[in-house]
Amino acid sequence: MSNTFGTALRLSIFGQSHAPAIGMTLEGLPAGFRPDGKALQEFLNRRAPGQGAHTTSRKEADVPEFLSGLVNGTTCGAPLCAVIRNTNVRSQDYVNLQEIPRPSHADYPARIKYGDAHDSRGGGKFSGRLTAPLCVAGGLCLQLLEQKNIRIGAQILRIGSVENPRFDPLAPEIPSAFATPTEAMLEEIAAAKAELDSVGGMIECAVTGLPVGLGEPMFDGLENRLAQILFAIPGVKGVDFGSGFDCAAMRGSQHNDPYYVNQDGAVQTRSNHAGGILGGLSTSMPLILRVAIKPTPSIGKAQESVSFSGKGGMLEIKGRHDPCIVPRAVPCVEAAAAIAILDAILEAKQWI
Amino acid sequence: MSNTFGTALRLSIFGQSHAPAIGMTLEGLPAGFRPDGKALQEFLNRRAPGQGAHTTSRKEADVPEFLSGLVNGTTCGAPLCAVIRNTNVRSQDYVNLQEIPRPSHADYPARIKYGDAHDSRGGGKFSGRLTAPLCVAGGLCLQLLEQKNIRIGAQILRIGSVENPRFDPLAPEIPSAFATPTEAMLEEIAAAKAELDSVGGMIECAVTGLPVGLGEPMFDGLENRLAQILFAIPGVKGVDFGSGFDCAAMRGSQHNDPYYVNQDGAVQTRSNHAGGILGGLSTSMPLILRVAIKPTPSIGKAQESVSFSGKGGMLEIKGRHDPCIVPRAVPCVEAAAAIAILDAILEAKQWI
Amino acid sequence: MSNTFGTALRLSIFGQSHAPAIGMTLEGLPAGFRPDGKALQEFLNRRAPGQGAHTTSRKEADVPEFLSGLVNGTTCGAPLCAVIRNTNVRSQDYVNLQEIPRPSHADYPARIKYGDAHDSRGGGKFSGRLTAPLCVAGGLCLQLLEQKNIRIGAQILRIGSVENPRFDPLAPEIPSAFATPTEAMLEEIAAAKAELDSVGGMIECAVTGLPVGLGEPMFDGLENRLAQILFAIPGVKGVDFGSGFDCAAMRGSQHNDPYYVNQDGAVQTRSNHAGGILGGLSTSMPLILRVAIKPTPSIGKAQESVSFSGKGGMLEIKGRHDPCIVPRAVPCVEAAAAIAILDAILEAKQWI
Amino acid sequence: MSNTFGTALRLSIFGQSHAPAIGMTLEGLPAGFRPDGKALQEFLNRRAPGQGAHTTSRKEADVPEFLSGLVNGTTCGAPLCAVIRNTNVRSQDYVNLQEIPRPSHADYPARIKYGDAHDSRGGGKFSGRLTAPLCVAGGLCLQLLEQKNIRIGAQILRIGSVENPRFDPLAPEIPSAFATPTEAMLEEIAAAKAELDSVGGMIECAVTGLPVGLGEPMFDGLENRLAQILFAIPGVKGVDFGSGFDCAAMRGSQHNDPYYVNQDGAVQTRSNHAGGILGGLSTSMPLILRVAIKPTPSIGKAQESVSFSGKGGMLEIKGRHDPCIVPRAVPCVEAAAAIAILDAILEAKQWI
Repeated sequence: MSNTFGTALRLSIFGQSHAPAIGMTLEGLPAGFRPDGKALQEFLNRRAPGQGAHTTSRKEADVPEFLSGLVNGTTCGAPLCAVIRNTNVRSQDYVNLQEIPRPSHADYPARIKYGDAHDSRGGGKFSGRLTAPLCVAGGLCLQLLEQKNIRIGAQILRIGSVENPRFDPLAPEIPSAFATPTEAMLEEIAAAKAELDSVGGMIECAVTGLPVGLGEPMFDGLENRLAQILFAIPGVKGVDFGSGFDCAAMRGSQHNDPYYVNQDGAVQTRSNHAGGILGGLSTSMPLILRVAIKPTPSIGKAQESVSFSGKGGMLEIKGRHDPCIVPRAVPCVEAAAAIAILDAILEAKQWI
Repeated sequence: MSNTFGTALRLSIFGQSHAPAIGMTLEGLPAGFRPDGKALQEFLNRRAPGQGAHTTSRKEADVPEFLSGLVNGTTCGAPLCAVIRNTNVRSQDYVNLQEIPRPSHADYPARIKYGDAHDSRGGGKFSGRLTAPLCVAGGLCLQLLEQKNIRIGAQILRIGSVENPRFDPLAPEIPSAFATPTEAMLEEIAAAKAELDSVGGMIECAVTGLPVGLGEPMFDGLENRLAQILFAIPGVKGVDFGSGFDCAAMRGSQHNDPYYVNQDGAVQTRSNHAGGILGGLSTSMPLILRVAIKPTPSIGKAQESVSFSGKGGMLEIKGRHDPCIVPRAVPCVEAAAAIAILDAILEAKQWI
Repeated sequence: MSNTFGTALRLSIFGQSHAPAIGMTLEGLPAGFRPDGKALQEFLNRRAPGQGAHTTSRKEADVPEFLSGLVNGTTCGAPLCAVIRNTNVRSQDYVNLQEIPRPSHADYPARIKYGDAHDSRGGGKFSGRLTAPLCVAGGLCLQLLEQKNIRIGAQILRIGSVENPRFDPLAPEIPSAFATPTEAMLEEIAAAKAELDSVGGMIECAVTGLPVGLGEPMFDGLENRLAQILFAIPGVKGVDFGSGFDCAAMRGSQHNDPYYVNQDGAVQTRSNHAGGILGGLSTSMPLILRVAIKPTPSIGKAQESVSFSGKGGMLEIKGRHDPCIVPRAVPCVEAAAAIAILDAILEAKQWI
Repeated sequence: MSNTFGTALRLSIFGQSHAPAIGMTLEGLPAGFRPDGKALQEFLNRRAPGQGAHTTSRKEADVPEFLSGLVNGTTCGAPLCAVIRNTNVRSQDYVNLQEIPRPSHADYPARIKYGDAHDSRGGGKFSGRLTAPLCVAGGLCLQLLEQKNIRIGAQILRIGSVENPRFDPLAPEIPSAFATPTEAMLEEIAAAKAELDSVGGMIECAVTGLPVGLGEPMFDGLENRLAQILFAIPGVKGVDFGSGFDCAAMRGSQHNDPYYVNQDGAVQTRSNHAGGILGGLSTSMPLILRVAIKPTPSIGKAQESVSFSGKGGMLEIKGRHDPCIVPRAVPCVEAAAAIAILDAILEAKQWI
């Protein structure tokens, strides 16, 4: 619970933004799996800061050190532990935040919950930085899934007022055209930044190659599991599947996905409003989900806030912050989905 | 897992639509709580079928029998078990469904997952009927929360093309004006029914009276827990919090909720785009969430499907089905929210 | 947790001695398993009271009713729920126990823990009667294991001063000669009863046919799991494996079990001091364990106690009680072992 | 599960004997706790090797580095992660063990379970070295418990043929006279070592200062939890409570612990055969438990074994091994007990 996710595959994340390190333990990976270290690092680099004008200028290599679970680069069945040292820490940027909570950050409820001992430096354990170990775990899961021809890809659907087209929910391949922001999106971000502001967005994710019947009933269906892990990504405020919120305005005759047998003898559906999930179980059609991501709460503009000592006042956030976290959240969504899917597969004994 | 939800409060649901009974066990309620049986039954009646033209004509009393956990009507600290007998069962309506899966139901993936032994009668364990024990548990939790001045109320936000206004996210009281469908909504449902069709909708839910700091970090925040349980309600395809999906188009300066100290000396926010949750933790502002509910997949219109023996064909569903499940889902959303909230409270030791 | 056991197979037990019913839910059994109802009832009858002079005269049929999870007698993949009604209840026997706790029963700490609302009638949820649903679950697991040639049998090792020989830890078959008390043991029990006293004992249990490597490291090894469930049987005060406590006086050269290849080419050990478990994992040699069971605390002799209102005094227990629960605990130990072993098998995906 | 223990306090252990590091994460400690680093190190030193003739000559400082969860030496509410680097590794000692399993070690079942990828170097994750992070966690818990006047102490009850007297189960203080081996015990160990052999033993542990009613019913009572964690210490083959296995030969009138009110008005028992636990719940009398520890399986004497390629043969173990692990296991038992007790306390909300 809390910092731990999964049933057959158990991920546990630890660390705070300004602690000596952040990291994760991952238990349940089959023995004999040989991760591709270079591919993993490339995946992590997609999440890393310092890649462009839209990201924070805090630059960290984010190279995980594996302390356990590998023998000569191969999983041995013991829990993996990977740590990433926090090297580029500027705690002084956060000094006034220990007294005045940033609007729409976890600062205020966390300080009330944990008291004076709470680590608020850089957002502490609520920092987006904790998605780095999530991506370490997810990157490994993605590699394992890929070996079984299960592919996961996410794209940017919206940043502010700029939209991209949705995935074709019937397509067996996941296009990567919009895995990074378009020019128009970069302009949207730059405009927000210029005004010391930030902007939100939406990410879509697809999973192809799933068997039929993956997921468990009621509280452990694919939707339940995916939602539980996706809401762990800071800033996510909504998750839907298939037609999602659009289904509210639809008739059953529109929304229902009729079955047919395709030329290969496989049962398919003519549409995919279900987003590949019925009753919490996979249908083998592409699994499609969307997440809404709020605008980065750390903005340069002066904001009204109150101090913990009870006085009101204006707050100006210095620090180094992304005017839009959506581009960096794309691999995080892929990682989260991969972890939840692999967990369901290992639990269901449907594969390894 | 799977049929079990919760950490400090553990709900487990059992039963199939045409089994002898459905029911639930609930562990973790404090000893000495005296539920109001009449109020519980009134709550269950809101979910019960047979209440109007928009619901199925299957009429069941849905009166739970408590087999354990109560002594003279008071909780004794032992797990509660409540069962509801399935009396009004017409399994013959479902005979052809054992051969031909209904589009957009769990029939197809469930049959593949569990094989020929799967209980497909009336949807088996994937039936909406399983929300009755969810409401028994939730009804008890609502009563306990109310004793602590935590109130939960849901309303219909949309049915098909008809919309209601959203809750005022700053209001300390939850209005009940739209807890049942408006005239226009009933007409929308009747129109769908007349065409042997169904229609989807959207429900909004508010929780007031929460303390600050409820919820646990990362995977067990309030959003994670609420989403996990809400997706257990059949037909739910999306969940969002506060401004939810609308945040994607917003700037940080719009979306951020500035803090101020109100006349009673309490820290409040001037807006509530966060829906009362930051970093997974409650802020003490009203918790606001929405769920999207797909149109009932069981429609009278002929639909294309395939038999498990591999042949295609048209399917006409007889049975008794709701043209719109949104009105009956309103108490289910309240129940699910109450269970998740009480679980978080009991885990956090913040109250009892 | 608490009333729930297991990872891949999840057993949850509910009920109190004088509640309307006791029962269990069992989740995770594979679909398509057809229990033998007659054999299950015969197994339950071994635990049932009223079988001889050594047991309580409270007679209850203990016939479980299955409310869910079965279709025409075959598991469908949904959770099983079975209930046993409490019919032969004489709560008046326990009236004074609500005021004066019985020495060495749970009465005292339970009343302090749960307060006045605690259900102390007949021991409430701490009653040995709760082993009936444990045996329902265990009886099902034993049948499933037997289909895979995994056999579990227990015997009485000691009652008071009367001892039986231990199992041969190398024998591939489990003898049933001492599954019931010997004449000398019955006399030992009768002698205690005549003096309004009770007597303790020891049970040994063997499991044959296990594959190599069953169990998970550290906290979820076979010893950990078996101990966790065995201590749930009321009266169990000790659990050991293989040579158990005797190993404390041994040298490594005596205790170590040398490997050899038998005539069938299988790796075996020449002795089995390990009781079939190394590092928490099965070795494929017979798994051997012992449990110590304390004398029934309910005795007719007058005993010193105190009332909850703080006054001392003597207590005479009327009621109907076993002078020795060891004979009835034999199938409980088999049931508990079966549940833990099947859970480990289902989790390890080593079989079904 | 598996490498994770606890409900409200969650300990997860990672690492292998010859991996870069071993360590643990610990979640659920209250914020604001300031561990005494010096006392923790002294506690760890009691477990460390290289302290005398009875221990292995592998010397490691075993100084944990805390990577997260502390701010200026105080817990902040985030998960703690502590790592201990493996520096003094001589993998070449174990080369032949990858081919020939050591009798009574986990080598054989682990290799079958995990296949060729298993890390057998130094026993891998089954090494006694993994008790170092257990002691880091347990040492922290001991300090927290001590602040609440809950004290835990263990002593050596037996090594080979040499016995010490048991704790007085009614004494409110825990004597430390036998926390280390007596002269006679050291001689017993030296004699075994001289013969290239090893010797087993028994440890007793007491917990004083517990409130009444700690523990949860059935599967999560104090006995269940303590047994589950104690069997995680390599070499433990038996656990009992109070009179434990001796109860099998007792009458109820002997074993029952009569209640009385002491001079301070507190309810006490005149004897403590229950070892402070009834129905899985604490009685407030001293909690007393024993564990049996098998002789170290690594002995210098030649032993019969088989190679994984199927050939038989004699094995001579070189390496550096303790002729008796009992003295070093004493703090491990204290650590395990402290973790289980603190978990039960935090879950029951009985204290912090």
